[in-house]
Amino acid sequence: MSVHDRLKQLGMELPTVTPPVGSYVPAIQIGNLIHTSGQLPMIKGELTGKGKVPTDTPLPNAQQAARVAVLNALAAAAQSAGGLDRIERVVRVGVFVNSALGFTDQAKVANGASDFLVELFGEKGKHVRAAVGVCELPLNAAVELELTIQVRS
Amino acid sequence: MSVHDRLKQLGMELPTVTPPVGSYVPAIQIGNLIHTSGQLPMIKGELTGKGKVPTDTPLPNAQQAARVAVLNALAAAAQSAGGLDRIERVVRVGVFVNSALGFTDQAKVANGASDFLVELFGEKGKHVRAAVGVCELPLNAAVELELTIQVRS
Amino acid sequence: MSVHDRLKQLGMELPTVTPPVGSYVPAIQIGNLIHTSGQLPMIKGELTGKGKVPTDTPLPNAQQAARVAVLNALAAAAQSAGGLDRIERVVRVGVFVNSALGFTDQAKVANGASDFLVELFGEKGKHVRAAVGVCELPLNAAVELELTIQVRS
Repeated sequence: MSVHDRLKQLGMELPTVTPPVGSYVPAIQIGNLIHTSGQLPMIKGELTGKGKVPTDTPLPNAQQAARVAVLNALAAAAQSAGGLDRIERVVRVGVFVNSALGFTDQAKVANGASDFLVELFGEKGKHVRAAVGVCELPLNAAVELELTIQVRS
Repeated sequence: MSVHDRLKQLGMELPTVTPPVGSYVPAIQIGNLIHTSGQLPMIKGELTGKGKVPTDTPLPNAQQAARVAVLNALAAAAQSAGGLDRIERVVRVGVFVNSALGFTDQAKVANGASDFLVELFGEKGKHVRAAVGVCELPLNAAVELELTIQVRS
Repeated sequence: MSVHDRLKQLGMELPTVTPPVGSYVPAIQIGNLIHTSGQLPMIKGELTGKGKVPTDTPLPNAQQAARVAVLNALAAAAQSAGGLDRIERVVRVGVFVNSALGFTDQAKVANGASDFLVELFGEKGKHVRAAVGVCELPLNAAVELELTIQVRS
């Protein structure tokens, strides 16, 4: 099953890539690797997870926000690669969680992203990952993540 | 116009690379990519932006500090590449902003770096970027950034 | 002297790679680079450095924790590379320090990792590095780090 079909089965579709607000780009391909910019959990210009985890955004919502950010990252990567089906494998996910004092379940938030990537890509969705807790994020997002992806040569 | 000429036009010049205080190096080239170490907004050994943004270092000063850190990163990259003119394009900028509680304009601080890179390199200065807010930085710097750069093969 | 012999001389050995708790992997090789997941200072499933530096984990202990995390990262990289001796050089270390308010010696914590890599690999252990202070880390670890390593082709 193609990743597009898998997305449709999950009732999702690849969002439009939001043009960056600044002198940077959503994704860049160098050799066979695509690097995305840090992505926020935006749906049509609105943040779906805001503030600290878990006080403002409880864990399940933060996991969902991570999925939304993955979808935005995939949209950026697909635009750069010439389509989702050009993706060979997911290489790395960097996850920054806007963390309330004492919150140490950043890995569980990041699982929202990791599990989703494996749902979509199977074994090729498995990646290395760094998840950390930060004190503030752009626009007060609950989570920000960046993706490195390998494309077919 | 060469990047050196562009710098001169802006009244700037490439600083001397500060030797790292530790068992690491300012930049490394692997294949056609150069990775720099995290750079602080140092001018001749003095931090130009210190403490939290915006309480200790207001936004415009933080943007200026980001420019200074970019200049240090470019100096490190140029030393490794054999000159600024060996740079083919800027690939990625990672920006860490020492953020006061409630500060969510990390993207605006990062624009200080991104806009400067495009001023210097034009379209080739456009990059992917991740900007996050952190609670503390080395030496109490207001901003730290790392650069990935592609060199001509 | 091989890195294994060097480790033995230091009274250390490469730990078993802990299987990740989630849909990710300890390390991935793409071309001649290995990227590891973020590593915690775990010894046999127990964190050796916990909480904030320096209030909960004093600086020397945090440096020791960074060494432990390096060892875990090397174990992950070696498993992926087919042995420690396949490592050509260390490329990059990203260090996240769980920082108490006002702690700005993240570079000294990171030196624990950097010095250890040079002890083990000599000149080939020198790398680029970004060290930042974060407010929370997974499982309340005192430090988290990720490694990029070049393998022999």
